[in-house]
Amino acid sequence: MGKALAVSPLAPASFPTLPVIQGVSFATAAAGVKYKDRTDVMLALLAPGTAIAGVFTRSATRSAPVLDCQAKLGGDAAPGAAILVNSGNSNAFTGGRGVESVQAITAAVAQATGVPQGRVFTSSTGVIGEPLPHDRIIATLDTLAGAAQPAGLEQAARAIMTTDTFPKGACATVEIGGKPVKIAGIAKGSGMIAPDMATMLVYIFTDAQVEQPVLQTLLSTLTDRTFNCITVDSDTSTSDTLLLAATGASGVQVGADDSAFADALHGVMLDLAHQVVRDGEGATKFVEIAVTGAASNADARTHAMAIANSPLIKTAIAGEDPNWGRVVMAIGKSGAAADRDLLSIRFGTITVAENGWVSPTYSEAQGAAYMKGQNLQIGVDLGLGQGQATVWTCDLTHGYISINADYRS
Amino acid sequence: MGKALAVSPLAPASFPTLPVIQGVSFATAAAGVKYKDRTDVMLALLAPGTAIAGVFTRSATRSAPVLDCQAKLGGDAAPGAAILVNSGNSNAFTGGRGVESVQAITAAVAQATGVPQGRVFTSSTGVIGEPLPHDRIIATLDTLAGAAQPAGLEQAARAIMTTDTFPKGACATVEIGGKPVKIAGIAKGSGMIAPDMATMLVYIFTDAQVEQPVLQTLLSTLTDRTFNCITVDSDTSTSDTLLLAATGASGVQVGADDSAFADALHGVMLDLAHQVVRDGEGATKFVEIAVTGAASNADARTHAMAIANSPLIKTAIAGEDPNWGRVVMAIGKSGAAADRDLLSIRFGTITVAENGWVSPTYSEAQGAAYMKGQNLQIGVDLGLGQGQATVWTCDLTHGYISINADYRS
Repeated sequence: MGKALAVSPLAPASFPTLPVIQGVSFATAAAGVKYKDRTDVMLALLAPGTAIAGVFTRSATRSAPVLDCQAKLGGDAAPGAAILVNSGNSNAFTGGRGVESVQAITAAVAQATGVPQGRVFTSSTGVIGEPLPHDRIIATLDTLAGAAQPAGLEQAARAIMTTDTFPKGACATVEIGGKPVKIAGIAKGSGMIAPDMATMLVYIFTDAQVEQPVLQTLLSTLTDRTFNCITVDSDTSTSDTLLLAATGASGVQVGADDSAFADALHGVMLDLAHQVVRDGEGATKFVEIAVTGAASNADARTHAMAIANSPLIKTAIAGEDPNWGRVVMAIGKSGAAADRDLLSIRFGTITVAENGWVSPTYSEAQGAAYMKGQNLQIGVDLGLGQGQATVWTCDLTHGYISINADYRS
Repeated sequence: MGKALAVSPLAPASFPTLPVIQGVSFATAAAGVKYKDRTDVMLALLAPGTAIAGVFTRSATRSAPVLDCQAKLGGDAAPGAAILVNSGNSNAFTGGRGVESVQAITAAVAQATGVPQGRVFTSSTGVIGEPLPHDRIIATLDTLAGAAQPAGLEQAARAIMTTDTFPKGACATVEIGGKPVKIAGIAKGSGMIAPDMATMLVYIFTDAQVEQPVLQTLLSTLTDRTFNCITVDSDTSTSDTLLLAATGASGVQVGADDSAFADALHGVMLDLAHQVVRDGEGATKFVEIAVTGAASNADARTHAMAIANSPLIKTAIAGEDPNWGRVVMAIGKSGAAADRDLLSIRFGTITVAENGWVSPTYSEAQGAAYMKGQNLQIGVDLGLGQGQATVWTCDLTHGYISINADYRS
């Protein structure tokens, strides 16, 4: 970091206009944790009765804030809640001192906001292994608590950015029983993105009224189809956190079987997940990998991730080279079932290979023209069964090397 | 390819002087399979009685030559054997036509050399998915068969290169029962290198007399400690082939328990494996990852490979950044057992992290100075058990992107 990075060519044209979610208010501040001249702390204050669900990194070396959040998820919703996030330092692999930082921050947030410490959730994102200067964060809390206002979600999206080149937001409104229910979320993340979450922080808010166990099941299920289907570099962060807060302020009760709400939430999560890939470090192409005809869904996912994580495929895409031979290679190495001679490969709607060899209708010029696009789809049919999976990734470019070979300098 | 690549900064100072192995002779030719103005075919002729062992890619999409070699391994050694290798085209994913090419070439080699077709082994390396112009290869066979001579191993090493920036050879002589036994081998490979072999071709010759099943067991065992412990980019080729031929011309019988021969062979294989990493596409650093204290050897290997394959670690090494936080990340994501607070990390002999945090004796300046070296060691102790593993890799640089974003152009 340090240097300002050019905005990803894959960024949306603008940040969406997010609706105000009743029952939650936001504030941001520049605490100077690491970055200069920008906000790096955000506080979300949640109304009494807000249910909170969460999904976290499965890393064996996860950070102190992640462990603290996980322990607090099942708590009593009655007194409300607070979420405090800082960027610039992940407070990961900081030993006993990392735990002390979480204690100090959550205690101070409780004092500044009146929310019990057991309902204060924190996240930290940035460099691993350096002590978090938590006093700088604590010094901003009284101001933050006083300044919180319902319309502050876009500012919050900016405060949690690290190597992100654009802030990420998404929203949906769905009518349930004749009443509108709103969902709005923000995310940060662009490197160390892999299945099982990413160096990714995501906060989604809704005014729906949802029991916590229902909210948790919904979040976990939809994560498998969204954030767990993206990869930038196969690396998994120590800090990944996704929190979903349902304030209930709409007065609309949502149950486990409410597909309209689930669909809307899925849309918001998928939009945010795609934006994380679109901000993949150095990315110039957004790539969907759709695998069908696998022996099982799990096999389809294994093949899709082998393709999405292959450095040779990702560099070929960067070079706009329709190098389908490398797709064959990735399927071969994935370990999941494949029969070379039943395989077919598509670039978009172009059939490139089938029956164990290049398609007689395919021309290299056709493939090369397709690869010039910014949004690409690689389709693979294994010809073995009904298993399918879709994942999303980006290309691997000089930009990724430049960003990561001197991240800390 | 096409463009001449600068020789890897990690290349040995010179090609070693390889001993003549009695019972095998070599010839090379420029068949024009793909490259201009260089040799691209090599023939090795093996004396009657030569035992041949092999290890091959486990890819589910392996090439026609690989399948043919695998089928022939157990054959009768009495009539001798031939190995024919071309570079420039891998004859992989070429459907029925690929099988026909193998048939045509092996039949023609049999005719030109008098070796039965069932003892003609072939390998092809280069682009995937393009038909092999086998007639060009066949046109060189009479000349090759007439020109074969015992001292041609270095020329053979040059003929099998693709993106390699230097030819790779290694040798050993070991005294058994007062008589010298010689081993000499060559290898090619620099991209698509991963465990379970690589885009790697390796041919090793010895004048020891070894029964084929003994030779096969020895080769398979030693491969697990050498070629299966290297990775450049985690990608696995469709063509990887390692053949070991024992001509018996020394008259020295080597049995299953002969550790002197096994040690010498291990040395040659490790040397060649390291050379493949040292020629990793774009590599500027040679990196040993040594994991100890894991719950099992398998866990140690999983951790070591997670570190060796992490793009974020490989780019940090390229940037000479002692970013040990990314090592913590890789251990966390690997899936094998780890306890954050028992972990210790070394760069060379420098203790960087221990007890769940940066070591009190470590200074960033010390780490940064260490990373300027060309040969690096990352040591990790899990503090959990006796499991250990060592693997070798290289850094991930702009050079890798440049080479692979336009390999076919």
